[in-house]
Amino acid sequence: MVQIEQDILSKNDAYADENRTAFEGRGILALNFVSSPGSGKTTLLARSITDLQGDVPVTVIEGDQQTANDAERIRATGAKAVQVNTGKGCHLDAHMVGHALETLQPENDSLLFIENVGNLVCPAGFDLGEKLKVVILSVTEGEDKPLKYPDMFHAAGLMLLNKVDLLPYLNFDVDLCIENARRVNPNIQVLQVSATSGEGLDAWYAWLKSQVANLGAAA
Amino acid sequence: MVQIEQDILSKNDAYADENRTAFEGRGILALNFVSSPGSGKTTLLARSITDLQGDVPVTVIEGDQQTANDAERIRATGAKAVQVNTGKGCHLDAHMVGHALETLQPENDSLLFIENVGNLVCPAGFDLGEKLKVVILSVTEGEDKPLKYPDMFHAAGLMLLNKVDLLPYLNFDVDLCIENARRVNPNIQVLQVSATSGEGLDAWYAWLKSQVANLGAAA
Repeated sequence: MVQIEQDILSKNDAYADENRTAFEGRGILALNFVSSPGSGKTTLLARSITDLQGDVPVTVIEGDQQTANDAERIRATGAKAVQVNTGKGCHLDAHMVGHALETLQPENDSLLFIENVGNLVCPAGFDLGEKLKVVILSVTEGEDKPLKYPDMFHAAGLMLLNKVDLLPYLNFDVDLCIENARRVNPNIQVLQVSATSGEGLDAWYAWLKSQVANLGAAA
Repeated sequence: MVQIEQDILSKNDAYADENRTAFEGRGILALNFVSSPGSGKTTLLARSITDLQGDVPVTVIEGDQQTANDAERIRATGAKAVQVNTGKGCHLDAHMVGHALETLQPENDSLLFIENVGNLVCPAGFDLGEKLKVVILSVTEGEDKPLKYPDMFHAAGLMLLNKVDLLPYLNFDVDLCIENARRVNPNIQVLQVSATSGEGLDAWYAWLKSQVANLGAAA
């Protein structure tokens, strides 16, 4: 079993390297969004695309077991989106992303949002060629999630703590949650946001623009 | 890969049959609780155990990638609990449950709660020998989850719609969510509950007691 797992991962890594090379050559900032189901990924991405319109071109790859609902929600913002259905699979892999790119054809110097299958376990182990994994945790899920799903929070460069508009109605300790995230990943950055109320989104957009600018500077 | 998957599943099914035979022979009602991370499974189980004290003996198997936090939360109620850490794994399997039973030794005519790893994909495919899968969906997760993760809602006999105390602060259409669940599983039963406010818990306890009574009647 270990050998099979290694074969799958090494094949995936080869595809991921191809994707990464394509992204770097064309100034595309690819972010891999990972979270539990229902953390608010699609809502956040749709709002971000709308708010960033005119600043940075954005395309989206949507991963779900079933349905094309999320790609349709993204297309409603005017952005190009490709839906990948994983069937029995619990994560996107780099090969699926490579195929989606053939259809999507993101332009040079743009942002690519990859919304993974809602799952705090499986997507942690699969590099898609992205610059960074962004883990979204909603405050309705509990402060303990970074400790219970450490691989995911260890793999992510940024944690977006979402749905902070609901904090008044919950027993949720923001400081403890961030402390838990930093116990498994001392370098993780954290931003508090609400995709529905808009709280904290300016900082999130500033973060995105700084990442795009860094990409240009490095090229 | 298909052959390997079949081998893993057929091995799992053999262990699941052993567990099921043990449960049936001893009048144990085993329920397999499945959901996203953060749906409120542990809170619901801890409260249920406390409220059912004196009525039905309960033991618990807790599945998580890491930490023994949930088993400790359950033990604080006075119930016996065994924690299983799955490491890289995204679900419990029947073999893990069989081992946990050796330690747990649930008494005859009791309830066994098995809390699976928080994941709406992987646990759907693995029979643990349980009587029924109970899927918990919290109203903060969105009405579309049954359509996006159909395998899980198809595999479950009961859906507990949790955190209904938060409905006043959300855009969540309860009827649409139930309609979506019944599109993938016309026979799924649904109960609306809040493990924090206590709303709907009486109906949930009545459901549990009727299941235990049916078990006795069938034996």
